[in-house]
Amino acid sequence: MRMRRKPWAEEEIKNNPHLVVPRPHEWRGKWHQFFNNTNPIHIEIGTGKGQFIIEMAKTHPHINFIGLELNSSVLGVALRKLIAARQETELDNCCLIRENATQLTDLFAPGEVERIYLNFSDPWPKRRHAKRRLTYHTFLDLYSEILAENGEIHLKTDNEKFFEFSLNSLSDYGFRLKNITFDLHNSDFEGNIMTEYEEKFAAQGMKIYRCEAVMGEGKR
Amino acid sequence: MRMRRKPWAEEEIKNNPHLVVPRPHEWRGKWHQFFNNTNPIHIEIGTGKGQFIIEMAKTHPHINFIGLELNSSVLGVALRKLIAARQETELDNCCLIRENATQLTDLFAPGEVERIYLNFSDPWPKRRHAKRRLTYHTFLDLYSEILAENGEIHLKTDNEKFFEFSLNSLSDYGFRLKNITFDLHNSDFEGNIMTEYEEKFAAQGMKIYRCEAVMGEGKR
Ligand SMILES: C[S@@+](CC[C@H](N)C(=O)[O-])C[C@H]1O[C@@H](n2cnc3c(N)ncnc32)[C@H](O)[C@@H]1O
Ligand SMILES: C[S@@+](CC[C@H](N)C(=O)[O-])C[C@H]1O[C@@H](n2cnc3c(N)ncnc32)[C@H](O)[C@@H]1O
Repeated sequence: MRMRRKPWAEEEIKNNPHLVVPRPHEWRGKWHQFFNNTNPIHIEIGTGKGQFIIEMAKTHPHINFIGLELNSSVLGVALRKLIAARQETELDNCCLIRENATQLTDLFAPGEVERIYLNFSDPWPKRRHAKRRLTYHTFLDLYSEILAENGEIHLKTDNEKFFEFSLNSLSDYGFRLKNITFDLHNSDFEGNIMTEYEEKFAAQGMKIYRCEAVMGEGKR
Repeated sequence: MRMRRKPWAEEEIKNNPHLVVPRPHEWRGKWHQFFNNTNPIHIEIGTGKGQFIIEMAKTHPHINFIGLELNSSVLGVALRKLIAARQETELDNCCLIRENATQLTDLFAPGEVERIYLNFSDPWPKRRHAKRRLTYHTFLDLYSEILAENGEIHLKTDNEKFFEFSLNSLSDYGFRLKNITFDLHNSDFEGNIMTEYEEKFAAQGMKIYRCEAVMGEGKR
């Protein structure tokens, strides 16, 4: 997400340790303690400005949501949105982490996560950048380690090539694909919550692709 | 395939029993005897005018190809094409059957078929006609019965909605998807052999979708 640096972001992140977890590795295997309940944990990788994860948390109070975002400035915007949301309504089931997805297995214990959301991940269209795609098999290694049995990956994108790549990568890895749609906003799918990118692309009349992938038996 | 009735078709089909097998049910479980070899058997369902299956047979002499087509007039055209091909080159690995795909399990014994081709199958876009789609689960029941262990279905279509439906239907049934492409003619796929419909659609600049589906373990 290209965005001007937000000089205030670092400071605000530091001042809100209950919302942007400072040393998240220390909660590995203990996220249920963090949330103080035994509800399922869903994470979003590349949360961006946070609209999706915050709306999801509002809509599904019995699920714990964790948004992972690399970029401090973008995360700062998500944080402000989360603070604003908490002024309107009780929202104890959502927190943010400033981290790289490459760290996932240091952040979560095996089986600790029920669902992973990948929304409008950078497509890295050049073949030599394929390794950076969040559905490249090295990332799927991490996901399959932290996902619970029958855990799922839910993916949305505007990028047809990234979608094609992801379907093949997920299926080759042993995930079972389901609810594939080539045009989410004209599909039967109910309860869709839009991300910032999704709103922008939808306004331009672009099609949104979506799929779900279930972890194969014996993978965990 | 909408086409004017060919009054000569029935007669020519009758006169070429070595090419359009007259009582194909009698060969159930004995197709290797029919071809007089032990090579794998690949079938195409809805062969149309035969270009694909005949070119495939020329290109892969060590595979036996059987084209299934419901419509006698269309099959008559395929037959003439097959006769012409055999005048140019030896071609003992290709025959045709005039039958409905609903009869598949009466035509082939369990595990007798290594691969099924579905090329530009009628998409039946109306929801109430979903049952007629050749990737509806009732057809997948038949395919999984006649397919060998690790047998495959290879599908091509111009119709995005039919493709989307088929991916979901195959995956839900337990087939593992692979080599999914949203634009066959601009993909890495090598050795593609075009069907009549494919040539027509490609000439109009339409994208061709393709995928392969492998029978899941324990399904056979
Ligand atoms: C294209 S934006 C999409 C943002 C948001 N999901 C949406 O749909 O509006 C991708 C985001 O993923 C973040 N990102 C990319 N790679 C990441 C990684 N390895 N770990 C964590 N975040 C990452 C980027 O910083 C960026 O904010
Ligand atoms: C749209 S055409 C495509 C023909 C050819 N595969 C191509 O790609 O050029 C579909 C063909 O499938 C045949 N067909 C449809 N349903 C069938 C069934 N249940 N069994 C056998 N053939 C069928 C039709 O008669 C028609 O010739």
